[in-house]
Amino acid sequence: MSIIVQKYGGTSMANSECVKNVAEKVVNAKLRGHDVVVVVSAPAGFTDHLVSRAKEITDKPSGRELDMILATGEQISISLLAMAIKALGEDAISFTSAQVGIITDGNHNKAKIEAINTDKLLKALGEGKIVIIAGFQGVTKDLEITTLGRGGSDTSAVAIGVALDAAEVEIYTDVDGIYTADPRVVPNAHKMDYITFDEMLEMAGSGAKVLHLRSVELAAKNNMPIHLRSSFSDAIGTYVLDEEDKMEHVLVRGVAHTTNNAKITIANIDNTSKNIALIFKTISDANINVDVITQNYINIDRITISFTVAQEEYDRALELSKDLGRRLKADEVYGNEKVAKVCIIGVGMKSTSGVASRVFTCLADHNVAIDMVSTSDINITCVVNQDDYAKAVIAIHNEFEL
Amino acid sequence: MSIIVQKYGGTSMANSECVKNVAEKVVNAKLRGHDVVVVVSAPAGFTDHLVSRAKEITDKPSGRELDMILATGEQISISLLAMAIKALGEDAISFTSAQVGIITDGNHNKAKIEAINTDKLLKALGEGKIVIIAGFQGVTKDLEITTLGRGGSDTSAVAIGVALDAAEVEIYTDVDGIYTADPRVVPNAHKMDYITFDEMLEMAGSGAKVLHLRSVELAAKNNMPIHLRSSFSDAIGTYVLDEEDKMEHVLVRGVAHTTNNAKITIANIDNTSKNIALIFKTISDANINVDVITQNYINIDRITISFTVAQEEYDRALELSKDLGRRLKADEVYGNEKVAKVCIIGVGMKSTSGVASRVFTCLADHNVAIDMVSTSDINITCVVNQDDYAKAVIAIHNEFEL
Repeated sequence: MSIIVQKYGGTSMANSECVKNVAEKVVNAKLRGHDVVVVVSAPAGFTDHLVSRAKEITDKPSGRELDMILATGEQISISLLAMAIKALGEDAISFTSAQVGIITDGNHNKAKIEAINTDKLLKALGEGKIVIIAGFQGVTKDLEITTLGRGGSDTSAVAIGVALDAAEVEIYTDVDGIYTADPRVVPNAHKMDYITFDEMLEMAGSGAKVLHLRSVELAAKNNMPIHLRSSFSDAIGTYVLDEEDKMEHVLVRGVAHTTNNAKITIANIDNTSKNIALIFKTISDANINVDVITQNYINIDRITISFTVAQEEYDRALELSKDLGRRLKADEVYGNEKVAKVCIIGVGMKSTSGVASRVFTCLADHNVAIDMVSTSDINITCVVNQDDYAKAVIAIHNEFEL
Repeated sequence: MSIIVQKYGGTSMANSECVKNVAEKVVNAKLRGHDVVVVVSAPAGFTDHLVSRAKEITDKPSGRELDMILATGEQISISLLAMAIKALGEDAISFTSAQVGIITDGNHNKAKIEAINTDKLLKALGEGKIVIIAGFQGVTKDLEITTLGRGGSDTSAVAIGVALDAAEVEIYTDVDGIYTADPRVVPNAHKMDYITFDEMLEMAGSGAKVLHLRSVELAAKNNMPIHLRSSFSDAIGTYVLDEEDKMEHVLVRGVAHTTNNAKITIANIDNTSKNIALIFKTISDANINVDVITQNYINIDRITISFTVAQEEYDRALELSKDLGRRLKADEVYGNEKVAKVCIIGVGMKSTSGVASRVFTCLADHNVAIDMVSTSDINITCVVNQDDYAKAVIAIHNEFEL
């Protein structure tokens, strides 16, 4: 029998009715003849509640003690789900990550999985049991409790799928798949049947928040198919796969966007690697994440540097940049607090030229000014004025007939 | 440095203010020069909440899965307390029972502690840390999570105290000690400074619900002093000790009572051990606990059996007894749904005769009819009409000048 791993998120575990609904889906998979391993998150809102309990005690809870309290949420979920499955007449057994032996490094709050002991899991599956495992958490070799960071249950599910050589990992969530663009922006966006790992990585890194980035990286590395689907229906969702051959050939798979961006420009400084390093070290030392970077040559000796940051970091980043501008004798330092990022993603671009020029022409035809451009072999990212992002996403979605 | 174990119950952990208050008490003990190990319960009400979550899923949750969910309550408490102690500038570390290695048998919901691994505890204490351990829970050799039953945190604390050869176990609760009688019944009842283990066992078994019975048994067996005291003050509470010599010699240490009793009498049956065994096997097979038992001889061949049960079991017990009465050809089967138990307890009785006669005379003088009497070498239990219990407790409390 093939093993499938199912992962249910917090909204699927929010209350007793939800838990019973999940139990039915799990039992149905078992009755279809699969060996079923289920990975669950804490009930929706519970992790936030625990964090706020900790914050009532201290502004700076230690990472170890925070993990100690956070790990309880998933433990509640696995117990309730095991009870609900047993109530339906199937045998089930729940395991914490310590019981399984989901071994991580010791980086509290953002631990990485190093190994998974499959002995107990295979034994329980061999006894015909449905196995339920607490996601998001791990344990070090010294039995210290760790957590993998927000969204870490997706990563738990993929890692367990890999360890058990599962046929696929089903990730159940509150959307029914991955869309060619955000349906709130593009009304005729449609759910994709397939997407490649590489495309999904670009989508996840560019605003499509349906899958935890690390889980996709892990799936890609181990060629573990992910089936992202809705926990509220039985409809097929989107498969994330390595098999381009199976997919319809398209130039562009989808358009992702983010609107929480701000842009800063340091104009006309000496083009030395020392200067460029100083800029990004200063920003990074202030714990500000830089996203898109462009550098424009004025001549061989002088350049203009632009970069984007999250809008909530804009004021601090602009202040630091003005200071840098003075030190580096820049002509000018200025910013735009409201820009957006539009990302055109598709493995088809690799082998087909002219996609970028079609993007630029399309945006020009629709009077969208492109502020910055950055490209990889499967991703063209355009930074535009925030007011223009919807127009840009719709225009590109139409241009490539998604 | 001497090790002391402190145990705080659920009301002491109810909210963030309570947790901070406990942290201060713990740090004060550390600053007084002790190595401090703290055992905590789940926040008040949280265990009940978890049980009701389980009951929403199924009427009959499996013992294993119930333990899985119940163990989360103490895990939340240990984490918050460790954070609160660190916020006060002392180093602290929390451990689940699985992390320590509090090994129990596999009887879910009522497990017994078999062994405690002290390695991690002694190492952390050696590093100057305050050690915080989840009470109530244990783990089998196979890492199955177990719980010790309601009130089990007291037992956890004593077992840890014994394993660490602690100087004493302080049990913090919402009363300030053990009283010579229930102060709600006897206004001039006073807190005792000392009580022996044996007396405490009789008190705990006779309605004084301040300490979990198993914890006292374990302390007695290992001669581990318990100091029962209030978590809301620094006042000395009551020491439970083996050292009679240190205590003021008294005939009677205290008067305990219960009011939730009912009495059943099966009158005039053949005096055979087979008959007596049949009666108590029938009642016990129905999962009804029998408390006080007396048998009165009518002549050498015929006896009358009386016993008490909890009031909520009265109807079922009476029905079974009437059936038994018919089979055993009893003259009559009758009951009293409302009786009370008054227990006079003191190790001084062992060596002093005449206590029982003083009790009977005292009650007679106050017009309290004694329905049943049962005695051990340190306990005289009188069953009286429920309306008379307060009069009886007050009269005896005065008679022995408690």
